[in-house]
Amino acid sequence: MIDLRSDTVTRPTEAMWDAMRNASLGDDTLEGDATVQALEQEAATLLGKEDALFVCSGTMGNAIATLVHACHGGEAVLDQEAHMANSEGGGVSRLAGLFCRTIPSHRGEMNLEVLSDAIRSGYSRYGEPTAMVAIETSHNAAGGCVQSLDYLAQVASVAHERGAAVHLDGARLFNAAVALGIDARDIAQHGDSVTFCLSKGLSAPMGSILLGSREFIERARTFRRTIGGGLRQAGIMAAAGLVALRTMPARLAEDHRRTLLLWERLRNSALVEAGQYPPQTNILRLAVPSGKAENHVRQLALHGIAIRASGPCALRLVVHRHIDDAAIDAVSHAFEALAGCDR
Amino acid sequence: MIDLRSDTVTRPTEAMWDAMRNASLGDDTLEGDATVQALEQEAATLLGKEDALFVCSGTMGNAIATLVHACHGGEAVLDQEAHMANSEGGGVSRLAGLFCRTIPSHRGEMNLEVLSDAIRSGYSRYGEPTAMVAIETSHNAAGGCVQSLDYLAQVASVAHERGAAVHLDGARLFNAAVALGIDARDIAQHGDSVTFCLSKGLSAPMGSILLGSREFIERARTFRRTIGGGLRQAGIMAAAGLVALRTMPARLAEDHRRTLLLWERLRNSALVEAGQYPPQTNILRLAVPSGKAENHVRQLALHGIAIRASGPCALRLVVHRHIDDAAIDAVSHAFEALAGCDR
Amino acid sequence: MIDLRSDTVTRPTEAMWDAMRNASLGDDTLEGDATVQALEQEAATLLGKEDALFVCSGTMGNAIATLVHACHGGEAVLDQEAHMANSEGGGVSRLAGLFCRTIPSHRGEMNLEVLSDAIRSGYSRYGEPTAMVAIETSHNAAGGCVQSLDYLAQVASVAHERGAAVHLDGARLFNAAVALGIDARDIAQHGDSVTFCLSKGLSAPMGSILLGSREFIERARTFRRTIGGGLRQAGIMAAAGLVALRTMPARLAEDHRRTLLLWERLRNSALVEAGQYPPQTNILRLAVPSGKAENHVRQLALHGIAIRASGPCALRLVVHRHIDDAAIDAVSHAFEALAGCDR
Amino acid sequence: MIDLRSDTVTRPTEAMWDAMRNASLGDDTLEGDATVQALEQEAATLLGKEDALFVCSGTMGNAIATLVHACHGGEAVLDQEAHMANSEGGGVSRLAGLFCRTIPSHRGEMNLEVLSDAIRSGYSRYGEPTAMVAIETSHNAAGGCVQSLDYLAQVASVAHERGAAVHLDGARLFNAAVALGIDARDIAQHGDSVTFCLSKGLSAPMGSILLGSREFIERARTFRRTIGGGLRQAGIMAAAGLVALRTMPARLAEDHRRTLLLWERLRNSALVEAGQYPPQTNILRLAVPSGKAENHVRQLALHGIAIRASGPCALRLVVHRHIDDAAIDAVSHAFEALAGCDR
Repeated sequence: MIDLRSDTVTRPTEAMWDAMRNASLGDDTLEGDATVQALEQEAATLLGKEDALFVCSGTMGNAIATLVHACHGGEAVLDQEAHMANSEGGGVSRLAGLFCRTIPSHRGEMNLEVLSDAIRSGYSRYGEPTAMVAIETSHNAAGGCVQSLDYLAQVASVAHERGAAVHLDGARLFNAAVALGIDARDIAQHGDSVTFCLSKGLSAPMGSILLGSREFIERARTFRRTIGGGLRQAGIMAAAGLVALRTMPARLAEDHRRTLLLWERLRNSALVEAGQYPPQTNILRLAVPSGKAENHVRQLALHGIAIRASGPCALRLVVHRHIDDAAIDAVSHAFEALAGCDR
Repeated sequence: MIDLRSDTVTRPTEAMWDAMRNASLGDDTLEGDATVQALEQEAATLLGKEDALFVCSGTMGNAIATLVHACHGGEAVLDQEAHMANSEGGGVSRLAGLFCRTIPSHRGEMNLEVLSDAIRSGYSRYGEPTAMVAIETSHNAAGGCVQSLDYLAQVASVAHERGAAVHLDGARLFNAAVALGIDARDIAQHGDSVTFCLSKGLSAPMGSILLGSREFIERARTFRRTIGGGLRQAGIMAAAGLVALRTMPARLAEDHRRTLLLWERLRNSALVEAGQYPPQTNILRLAVPSGKAENHVRQLALHGIAIRASGPCALRLVVHRHIDDAAIDAVSHAFEALAGCDR
Repeated sequence: MIDLRSDTVTRPTEAMWDAMRNASLGDDTLEGDATVQALEQEAATLLGKEDALFVCSGTMGNAIATLVHACHGGEAVLDQEAHMANSEGGGVSRLAGLFCRTIPSHRGEMNLEVLSDAIRSGYSRYGEPTAMVAIETSHNAAGGCVQSLDYLAQVASVAHERGAAVHLDGARLFNAAVALGIDARDIAQHGDSVTFCLSKGLSAPMGSILLGSREFIERARTFRRTIGGGLRQAGIMAAAGLVALRTMPARLAEDHRRTLLLWERLRNSALVEAGQYPPQTNILRLAVPSGKAENHVRQLALHGIAIRASGPCALRLVVHRHIDDAAIDAVSHAFEALAGCDR
Repeated sequence: MIDLRSDTVTRPTEAMWDAMRNASLGDDTLEGDATVQALEQEAATLLGKEDALFVCSGTMGNAIATLVHACHGGEAVLDQEAHMANSEGGGVSRLAGLFCRTIPSHRGEMNLEVLSDAIRSGYSRYGEPTAMVAIETSHNAAGGCVQSLDYLAQVASVAHERGAAVHLDGARLFNAAVALGIDARDIAQHGDSVTFCLSKGLSAPMGSILLGSREFIERARTFRRTIGGGLRQAGIMAAAGLVALRTMPARLAEDHRRTLLLWERLRNSALVEAGQYPPQTNILRLAVPSGKAENHVRQLALHGIAIRASGPCALRLVVHRHIDDAAIDAVSHAFEALAGCDR
């Protein structure tokens, strides 16, 4: 099976297995685990933040960040296509009690005036101040779009002027950095708190990192406990995470190259609507005539290709370490075959 | 001062004062107060619901309704112009922990397909089901618009099909009923829970009624306690509320007539943008050139007329019991005078 | 009926009715109401706090205080007999999300070492810091006990040393002050926030005051909105509250004298267990043989006397403005008559 | 170092490493992971429940269980020595908003009358019903005590009669079962929901199982998402968990034997207070003269023995797979040496 459903299906590398097997193990929730501490320190240094916390998932990192920011206000502003708004169980409100203002975004970017209007400063008779503005790059639902550094700086500026913190959901932060040809820390600088995932393109079996100031992470560590995210022999997974962090970002460019290649091959397919944006990272979102998406998914499965529909009129293909050039060929041939039948 | 800022400024009638002075008083949170009980029973009967609860305000009624509905799920759908979304401190999330999906509305009506898509049925890996869809009629931010019974029925049908309850924020429910020329219960039938206010056009000094099934109100009564909304000699205010409920709905037509009259007089004013909708109830929302709103508010204050801006490019005038025909004349003359200066 | 169930049954005085009728009325949630503002300022000055907020009830004042303090931590310490722990719907956790540590108290006083151990300082791997320690004086469940100023100072000292704020639930604060022969502000100084009730012994029909620093009250005002405690023509009730605040504290001594008189008359009754504490304020708690309490309540009702059982082995009698010396006589005669039958 | 701080320090067995390396891996949060599903099914069958959910930790299992139960009420009853009350960040209230009544326990057992009184049935003017009663066996803070099946049955009976669900925190459930010489399912039958840990004595590197009805687990799965407890290649850890579940319960008897042996060797030590209870499982709690605990911990560390103080006057030693008979000898010799110096 050629599995393009998500880059979350990536399996550990041999180097990761070796590291897992040989990790020095403590109990991360008792007195601390040396491997986890090494990962947290290395991540903090790499991303230019004071401190870091190893968490089980990107969703957990986002949830904990929200719990920490929530002591500074009662609202959050999210773009309405954000993963945090649609796929994280509403934790922003369910766990942290924040009221969310969700505003439209185009290719992952919110209009800055609309954003500014949605942020509340101070306590008024309408409500509490906005505690947190959340941004996401690369942007999952927008097809792996990468926001410019300039945009991120402006969001941070608007938020800070109006008293809100910025949380950056960087589940695929390294994909964004590679696409922009910059260091991940150049992006991370615009978030008061930042999450990134060691799984997905970086191929660790699980785990994410939450970053912020020393005080922020001290509080985050407490909330990780409350949420039950403290692990015992966490060093096993942290060891894989360290390999991921050290060795995998560099190879994301290869995924991006293949995603673009796939786009070149599929963009003129009769199955696909014309006039779409080329992919910027490892996610390819293809618009199809309304109602066709699920059918295409089923047909491609018969060709040994697993993809997902993204609503009734879009397909979503995600390229990762297990997708090589041959797989790209196979996918484009399958699309051709389907287009033939579809006529 | 001719005060058109809101119908919440209405003062009690003489009949209300008499009723307040002569109310039999108990302790509503101890064993119950006969006057409150009479008001609750009369309201339930009038609106066609099993039971009712006297609460301090419309916001409190909405907050308590949300707390009760919240045991059936984790999300709420609100229109993004709703009073509950913008002016109630985010209580839906802050007090009840629901994640809100806010969707656009036009003249107080949400698109039914968008609504249906925003409601989540059952527990999935994306989140919990939607507990509550909230609607508002007449619609404050949309200039006192009244939704058709047909629309309300369709919202209820969509919500119920997908497993969500409907809460009707009827702060000005009787204005809506009068505008449609129907009984308030014909509107109320479409909400599983309903709030309406005894203050505002009905002129009681404070208080609202929350309506629902017997089981719903039993739970609501507990949450009223939690929130601190249980009053001692509540009978004083309930007595005014009873007079309001019995005698004031009929006179709302007069407010509506004068609002329409005001519209006729102001619609061609040079101050006001052309092509707007005529008012349906007692709220007149006038678009003005961008940035002019606050200035007009200040100028009219010099003429002894108090109104409020609704953002930078709209004025909001609310007609109520203390606004007579002479006041309408005075307002239209002041607009004429201002238009003269404005040229 | 001689109603000793609670001092919450007190009806407004004639002076209160006059004040209510003649109050200048605004809309307290629109631009503010002059009568409410006068009450808030006078209360703040009298109690020695920077600012004050008029709220619907003592429970609401406590709930709002908790919401404000909750931004500084995740736990609260209450004595397990506190009204906030047993009779306020669990709002500390339900509305504000705080985890409560409830510790034993004797005559309303917690052991200071146990208190100190129950307070958590800072963020640790066990949890968040304690945001609030709540105390209650006079203490309802402990039979109207009054804690010494020294005790209050020590609680504040322990709490502050360990980083927690002190909330003083002074529903009957003026009873405590009268019992100690001091100014209410001498008690209030030991709470970072303080609630007291205008109803109960002070006889206003409804309403309480929440006090604190200017910043605290600014936030509290926002949460009052969220909770729906903002009233329209609040001036009516504030006017009665002003009369209560100005004229009623002085007469509480009379209630205390009659409570003590009642104690002297009933302490040797065959119905009552020996060796109890004399009342310090207006609440008389009488231990009775286990299982007898409800029966005595029923028997006394036949004599036209309404009291309440406090569990299966205690009676609770509350003296207030409508209980005169003749009523005290009548109650003691009824006890004698019952004791006769009981033999 | 002989590490008796906790059984959470246990490292994976060789069989676990092999299973981890060879596990078939999917993405547990995408379409499911076959190894996780196998573990969940096997655990459910073994414990006699309809369904099971793999979670990151016992704290997470308890937190999720609370979130599910919380839709049936607003309060929880915990014993005041429970791990959920003292070491889980107050999640019962912080995440699920429940107000906790904590009641005393003796050797892990609550008095059944006190328990019954602490449970609230139905909605009243005092508050919402109790959603959940939590019990813990073996009981960590009580020194690994095991409650009798009869006690568990009575708790369940009291809770169910009064409308509350029972959650059983069985972090060391298999230790309890081994101590009683019964199947774990005989204990689990008394919890509507049950958590047990694959780490600790069972030696898996991380992970716990939450059990309940099919509907309960469906909801729990959603909340696991919200909390961020969904893992990607969870199969790695589930594989170790399967080995733990299949092979490790049987060997807990050995830990218990050594704990008892240690008790026999230390009970008459001059360092230890006389008259204590013998251990029932793998935790040995030794009372020491007040203030001595931290000193003993430090002294033992110099002998290469790591233990923890449990407050100022108790030591806590936990026996597990890495503690053999020689380690028991070494510990008792170290105590003898210390006792010699201490004189």
